[in-house]
Amino acid sequence: MTVLDKVNDPTDIKALTPLELEELATNVRDAILNRVSQYPGGHLGPNLGVVEMTIALHKVFNSPVDKLIWDVSHQSYPHKVLTGRKEFFTDKDKFSGTTGYTDPEENEHDFIRVGHTSTSIATAMGYALARDVQGKKENIVAIIGDGALSGGLAFEGLDGAGTLNGNLIIIVNDNEMAITENHGGIYQHLADLRASKGTSANNLFKSFGLDYRYLEEGNDIQSLIVLFESVKDINRPIVLHIHIEKGHGYKPAVENKEGMHQVFAPFDIATGQPVNSSTNIVRSYNNVFLDFMEEKLAKGDNLIAINAAIPMFFGLSQFAKNHPKNYVDGGIAEQYTVTLGGAIAAAGTRAIIFQNATFLQRAYDQLNHDLALNKEPAIVIISNSQIGGTNDTHQGSFVYSQTSNIPNVIDLAATSEEDLFAMLNWAYNQHEHPVFIHLPEHTLENRPTKITDFSKPQYEVVKSGEKVAILGLGAMLEKAENVAEELEKSGFNPTVVNPFFANLLDVAALDKLSETHGLFVTIEDGTKDGGFGQKVATYLASKGIKTLVYGADTEFIDAVPKEELYNRYHIRPELMATDIIEATKESKGPNFFKKIFSK
Amino acid sequence: MTVLDKVNDPTDIKALTPLELEELATNVRDAILNRVSQYPGGHLGPNLGVVEMTIALHKVFNSPVDKLIWDVSHQSYPHKVLTGRKEFFTDKDKFSGTTGYTDPEENEHDFIRVGHTSTSIATAMGYALARDVQGKKENIVAIIGDGALSGGLAFEGLDGAGTLNGNLIIIVNDNEMAITENHGGIYQHLADLRASKGTSANNLFKSFGLDYRYLEEGNDIQSLIVLFESVKDINRPIVLHIHIEKGHGYKPAVENKEGMHQVFAPFDIATGQPVNSSTNIVRSYNNVFLDFMEEKLAKGDNLIAINAAIPMFFGLSQFAKNHPKNYVDGGIAEQYTVTLGGAIAAAGTRAIIFQNATFLQRAYDQLNHDLALNKEPAIVIISNSQIGGTNDTHQGSFVYSQTSNIPNVIDLAATSEEDLFAMLNWAYNQHEHPVFIHLPEHTLENRPTKITDFSKPQYEVVKSGEKVAILGLGAMLEKAENVAEELEKSGFNPTVVNPFFANLLDVAALDKLSETHGLFVTIEDGTKDGGFGQKVATYLASKGIKTLVYGADTEFIDAVPKEELYNRYHIRPELMATDIIEATKESKGPNFFKKIFSK
Repeated sequence: MTVLDKVNDPTDIKALTPLELEELATNVRDAILNRVSQYPGGHLGPNLGVVEMTIALHKVFNSPVDKLIWDVSHQSYPHKVLTGRKEFFTDKDKFSGTTGYTDPEENEHDFIRVGHTSTSIATAMGYALARDVQGKKENIVAIIGDGALSGGLAFEGLDGAGTLNGNLIIIVNDNEMAITENHGGIYQHLADLRASKGTSANNLFKSFGLDYRYLEEGNDIQSLIVLFESVKDINRPIVLHIHIEKGHGYKPAVENKEGMHQVFAPFDIATGQPVNSSTNIVRSYNNVFLDFMEEKLAKGDNLIAINAAIPMFFGLSQFAKNHPKNYVDGGIAEQYTVTLGGAIAAAGTRAIIFQNATFLQRAYDQLNHDLALNKEPAIVIISNSQIGGTNDTHQGSFVYSQTSNIPNVIDLAATSEEDLFAMLNWAYNQHEHPVFIHLPEHTLENRPTKITDFSKPQYEVVKSGEKVAILGLGAMLEKAENVAEELEKSGFNPTVVNPFFANLLDVAALDKLSETHGLFVTIEDGTKDGGFGQKVATYLASKGIKTLVYGADTEFIDAVPKEELYNRYHIRPELMATDIIEATKESKGPNFFKKIFSK
Repeated sequence: MTVLDKVNDPTDIKALTPLELEELATNVRDAILNRVSQYPGGHLGPNLGVVEMTIALHKVFNSPVDKLIWDVSHQSYPHKVLTGRKEFFTDKDKFSGTTGYTDPEENEHDFIRVGHTSTSIATAMGYALARDVQGKKENIVAIIGDGALSGGLAFEGLDGAGTLNGNLIIIVNDNEMAITENHGGIYQHLADLRASKGTSANNLFKSFGLDYRYLEEGNDIQSLIVLFESVKDINRPIVLHIHIEKGHGYKPAVENKEGMHQVFAPFDIATGQPVNSSTNIVRSYNNVFLDFMEEKLAKGDNLIAINAAIPMFFGLSQFAKNHPKNYVDGGIAEQYTVTLGGAIAAAGTRAIIFQNATFLQRAYDQLNHDLALNKEPAIVIISNSQIGGTNDTHQGSFVYSQTSNIPNVIDLAATSEEDLFAMLNWAYNQHEHPVFIHLPEHTLENRPTKITDFSKPQYEVVKSGEKVAILGLGAMLEKAENVAEELEKSGFNPTVVNPFFANLLDVAALDKLSETHGLFVTIEDGTKDGGFGQKVATYLASKGIKTLVYGADTEFIDAVPKEELYNRYHIRPELMATDIIEATKESKGPNFFKKIFSK
């Protein structure tokens, strides 16, 4: 029987001896490795680094009365193991029983559903203010990693915390790197603080009016316990700067901190090597823009590629090494990277900003003001603009309700590599508009497009037919073609259209189509609300033309398989074909309208 | 002839003697006072404070080769006066020729159209990176006021600036207060820096890796010139912390810094007193929530009212004085205030967050994640959800395309004080949903509502008729009633509906109405794209029912009078009545649909 076998709740940790706590750390580490080595997509290095800290936190504080608030919460695995959820780590059959993030609906020791960075201090401040107004006394603890410190909301939180007259403990869990190496002036400052063992006269945290302590031995349980005991029930806000080792206790993760930050394929625990060596990533649309940028640089163009701490998802790491002057990683700071890109474009250098849809929502205001209002011809390449495929904490399906409703922008959805090239090439050579290009998340086939100018909306009729017109935006063009084939089985000959534009209507094309088509169908890879189809439907509704809009409902979707979502939203050729055939049988509008308005 | 008479361009400043520069400062100050005292809505105190600094900047640097980037740009009046735009300040007939913000389309010395805070450092970094990749050498200068330093993007910018190997001059224009007093830990730090004349060992700016200098005499032209000369062409990023006096040189503005930050009514320059003493603000919906909160506190409830540096627009200043524990001003930090409110609600205290629509777009991600994903029952009261009424830098008409497309939320638009009370009362007593309540921007009349439960969408038929149904959301209910009256003159008897909900459809009501109505009309006080009407039209289009959607186009609107916008968008009773009568005459759908799909 291991020590972990005896720990079903944090209270079980209180009575453990120092030796048992050490064994518990080993057990927790084994449980994490057991899960992450077999269940792709989990975070490894960040969790291994905070095993000792989490044990010490639960030894000293009384969760859930005392509140531990984990930033991003991708480092909450040890916390989950110690708060009644160990079977999700030790039992392979139960891996899917928990996500990689905290969730109040899952467990009383969790306080926020989170996946974006830098919110923990603001959240902890909310709990602290509520506690004070309620006359309570518990400890509020925010745990934020160094990588999350570059996000503006973290600074806003530190600034707000400096005004508190009460207990607040902010743990800066400093593992010397975020996902990749950290970017930004404060990382040198954190290094200076580490080098001086926290004694440097210059101290960012003190500038915000916060008390401060430093702990060098952040993977030593007893040192951690001593530190936490010393600040428990403190009557003012304090920062505990704790130096930990990312991947601690597992050699492959210590030696390959970036590669084992998050693991996407099963691996052998003994070696850290992937079990299946053939997990090559297939050639993707990344090469379209990487080749494009290389070609432009070879010609002597000025361009700068920008991203916010996720170069690996766009294949930008090698580009960054080859062209350091033409590459900026702004760290986890989406607002900054968008405003920066706008200014670079304003100054006459081409700016290409790479963003994930879920993180881009941090920069809505900057898209609206610093790009669109200023008409800066920056290009934003957006991944994860899709229904499903993620946890609800990283959902990309809301992106079109933001991007497609901002003025002055050309908001494009690529269907294929050829589309993507045509869009990028046009966007790069114009200077009138910010251009957003959403990458398709499906496998691409060869689909040459004839369109080379995207300055005005123009639809491409992919298949010419009659009566029913189906518009499939971006990746959904494939579904449009499939439903057309399905309808052909019932004697229909539908038209299929690639609309390219998420925000602007090709009114001439719609008018022309409506001369010979009585029913329109739109399909998009995002929410219906605020998206492409509702714009088409509204235009057609003003003329009394029947339209069916397909896309996601306005709901959070937590790791539901895509096929299940397609069923739920009827985005399957058979289901859509049935709907469409039904819709052609009658229309509330036609006879009824005539009856009502005829004299 | 004054010195200003001779200054038509910044180059004219170069040759002026010290005495002439002093006189120029007086002339510039007089020009600003001339405009602001007669042209309501202008910023006074911030501009008077930077007159000397602006003269020194243009004396030392070579604009527009060297680039001056003004944060928010509400303090750019002296810059405008000195860059060929003095007649917009000296000549009453030309006041409307310039806005209160910088605009590259207006003048080559302006580099960004801006009105939200905290973007200048990121923008300057973009210009600096573009300069370096282009192999150029000019100075890039960002000027940011102390109040704007609390916004997360300012910190992201400082953090990014710390990585630059090149020229960047960041002027922190410290006037000891923002719009109202500053809130946040860094303001004590700025005070410490001022008290130590910049010599404090602890230094926020140095923490970001930036060089730093302090100037106490920030209203002394010669001292400013010496400082700027000393850093011109510097090869690294540096912060110049310049202590200035808000309102400098004009006693009424020095003595009443908050009241004369921005001036909304003409005043007598001699006294600083309003010309027309009867400019009382009429009783408004503010009293609805102020009275509501007072009543709840009197009963011993726990609640916290939150806002981000704009208490005066909600009448919250007195509330703050009376209930300091129940009030948080987070400073200019919208992200922080939304996340904070969510956590306060999660901790069981009622949180009511007050935001202006234009600034709320800074916190889209926090609305989506920290409120909606977490289903925190915080209440967000939103002003400025309207078409027009502002500059394009402060446009509120995009708000519904954000708020109405987020899951789990109840997004409500109030028509009247009675609506507002009913919505607030319901929202306060439920614990299931974040609730957004948009305030109407029009004068309100007494319009009692019968609805007391907003947990499920339910429309209220305000006037029962037939054939044509008109839905007027929020303030636009009045327009719906007016167009109905207009239609009655042509023999129609339209139905008028208050839909209350911007995001959810009362499908049962729509179905019932569509039994006896052949044409639907929606009117909303925001953009059509992404808003309420497109949701209604999409639902009805799926049944082939004709619908007309009225609202704003997706465009930036710069201080265009509301009546002109209503004309442009046809939101006038006569124009809508004509459209509607025309629409009842024929429908593309009816006969056509039948013809196409009949065998």
